[in-house]
Amino acid sequence: MREEILNILREKAPQPVSGQDLAHVLGITRTGVWKHIQSLKKMGYQIEAYTKKGYVLTGIPDKLLPEEIGAVLHTAFLGRHICYEEQVQSTNEILKKLAVSGADDGTLCVAEEQTGGKGRLSRGWFSPYGKGLWFSLLLKPSFLPQEAPKMTLLAAVAVVRAIRECCGVNAMIKWPNDVLLEGRKLVGILTEMSAEFGHINYLVVGIGINVCVPRDMVPENLRDSAISIADVAKKPFTRVQLLGRVLDYFEEYYQQVLKEGFQPIFDQWRVYSTTLGRMVKVISPDKTYLGTAVDIDEDGALMVRKEDGTVEKVLAGDVSIRPATGTGKYEFR
Amino acid sequence: MREEILNILREKAPQPVSGQDLAHVLGITRTGVWKHIQSLKKMGYQIEAYTKKGYVLTGIPDKLLPEEIGAVLHTAFLGRHICYEEQVQSTNEILKKLAVSGADDGTLCVAEEQTGGKGRLSRGWFSPYGKGLWFSLLLKPSFLPQEAPKMTLLAAVAVVRAIRECCGVNAMIKWPNDVLLEGRKLVGILTEMSAEFGHINYLVVGIGINVCVPRDMVPENLRDSAISIADVAKKPFTRVQLLGRVLDYFEEYYQQVLKEGFQPIFDQWRVYSTTLGRMVKVISPDKTYLGTAVDIDEDGALMVRKEDGTVEKVLAGDVSIRPATGTGKYEFR
Repeated sequence: MREEILNILREKAPQPVSGQDLAHVLGITRTGVWKHIQSLKKMGYQIEAYTKKGYVLTGIPDKLLPEEIGAVLHTAFLGRHICYEEQVQSTNEILKKLAVSGADDGTLCVAEEQTGGKGRLSRGWFSPYGKGLWFSLLLKPSFLPQEAPKMTLLAAVAVVRAIRECCGVNAMIKWPNDVLLEGRKLVGILTEMSAEFGHINYLVVGIGINVCVPRDMVPENLRDSAISIADVAKKPFTRVQLLGRVLDYFEEYYQQVLKEGFQPIFDQWRVYSTTLGRMVKVISPDKTYLGTAVDIDEDGALMVRKEDGTVEKVLAGDVSIRPATGTGKYEFR
Repeated sequence: MREEILNILREKAPQPVSGQDLAHVLGITRTGVWKHIQSLKKMGYQIEAYTKKGYVLTGIPDKLLPEEIGAVLHTAFLGRHICYEEQVQSTNEILKKLAVSGADDGTLCVAEEQTGGKGRLSRGWFSPYGKGLWFSLLLKPSFLPQEAPKMTLLAAVAVVRAIRECCGVNAMIKWPNDVLLEGRKLVGILTEMSAEFGHINYLVVGIGINVCVPRDMVPENLRDSAISIADVAKKPFTRVQLLGRVLDYFEEYYQQVLKEGFQPIFDQWRVYSTTLGRMVKVISPDKTYLGTAVDIDEDGALMVRKEDGTVEKVLAGDVSIRPATGTGKYEFR
């Protein structure tokens, strides 16, 4: 009901809508309308009441409210259930708990702030209030657990395409799960899986996008390796718009994968990759070596040609691009 | 302290040990000794007190108490931390929660009864009080998530070897996760994984072994497809002894895998397999077909040669052996 009132006001703005009309259309009392207006104002919506004319929506809060996200989404199922929180420890953790208690496929968990945002390999992700998009998606795909690592590549492609379109900046993908802008870290992606033999229970894809983290807010030792979209954005955009586009593209690619497999994603990934063709240093659990990143294979693994001509398949560990971009330390500990 | 008293009594039985000696050896008072004896009695241990002679251990409860398990284990880390419960919904669920809160590698969760024991693909597992071994193991292996499905094969090999040795019965493995005896279901294994890109957070390997489930206790529609070891056992054994041997072999194979990979496990698996060489019906998510199970490949996938000569690689779904053994319905719903 609250969302319906908001949508009517949004549609009519800057024209006023009378309380009587709202009450009539929605089949509630004028006092009922007034109560919902108060609750919208508490959420941060600016709504002016003019005597004899009615209510006018004059301002929308800069928050990732489900009502706002729903208004920009073009998806069929992704983000159609939203868990919104002002502050959480980690949206991945929240969503994993929701998954266990039966949350729907496509559920989105989004927060203004993460106090313990997570990156790969137990690293942290700096997620200050209102300065980025910190969110996670719950998916229950029909493909095998062995396919799951490729979802990180899909997420990267969706994020990069949305950022390029919404913000006019040339974000690039660093294998496997980072998105860079001007060689510095803009986005981190953490895909977590719960699976059994031959069956994925669920995937949680966590995405952190630095939208407008002020430079002086970033921990000093990491300041040179991180970047926000606002530092170089060429087009005006809101966080809600960007989130909506990421979800739109994510769903589009995901549906494609369920029908055709990951090959089209890999093709797109190659276009956006900043890793391929570059000298890289690979730090894997058992060895460290230099080489040239030549391609990704059908598993999403990075193929690295070493100086002796042999090609290594990299499925885990850290890959840094040489010469070092930024400090080489891409994640906030 | 309680465990130390128990071990001394166990060693000396049927000779008595005086309260004074116990107090002296352990550096506590005789009242302290008496209190621990009372607590052991409450746990189900039968301890007689003879005036002027002391305490004699005359009976051990038929329970899977950590004190008993610890006394038979030969492992370095597996089962060295034990979570014991009389009744749980599912040992896998308990252990997954413990994993999230930081439980140690190798932790064992064992229960006398599961009210919601789980099999593969959301099926149930009938787990009545004191009639079987219902337990789960927590592992944090260094190998890639892609390797995890093979752990189910390792578990099956360890269980079969332990059952054959302890009970003198010819248990066989049905791909991927069932152990059969006389064509009927004796053991179920459910491996669950939490992972991210290139890294396993943890594995939980759940194992249910029907030790002495009375035939008339089994739900009627499944009575012909299930079996207990006690129905055909050729050697006397206790549940604790069998559990200890399973853990001993599991750790031995696991350590071998971490050093050499899964090849030796696959060789052992082939020896115990009842699936290879048989006509099978494969019900996969997208199709159903008949064929001959010819081998497992390096991923642990079942290779099935269809009538037209082509070989399918089976990584998920149900495989039943033809002609049907039992009712063909192997799991309790």
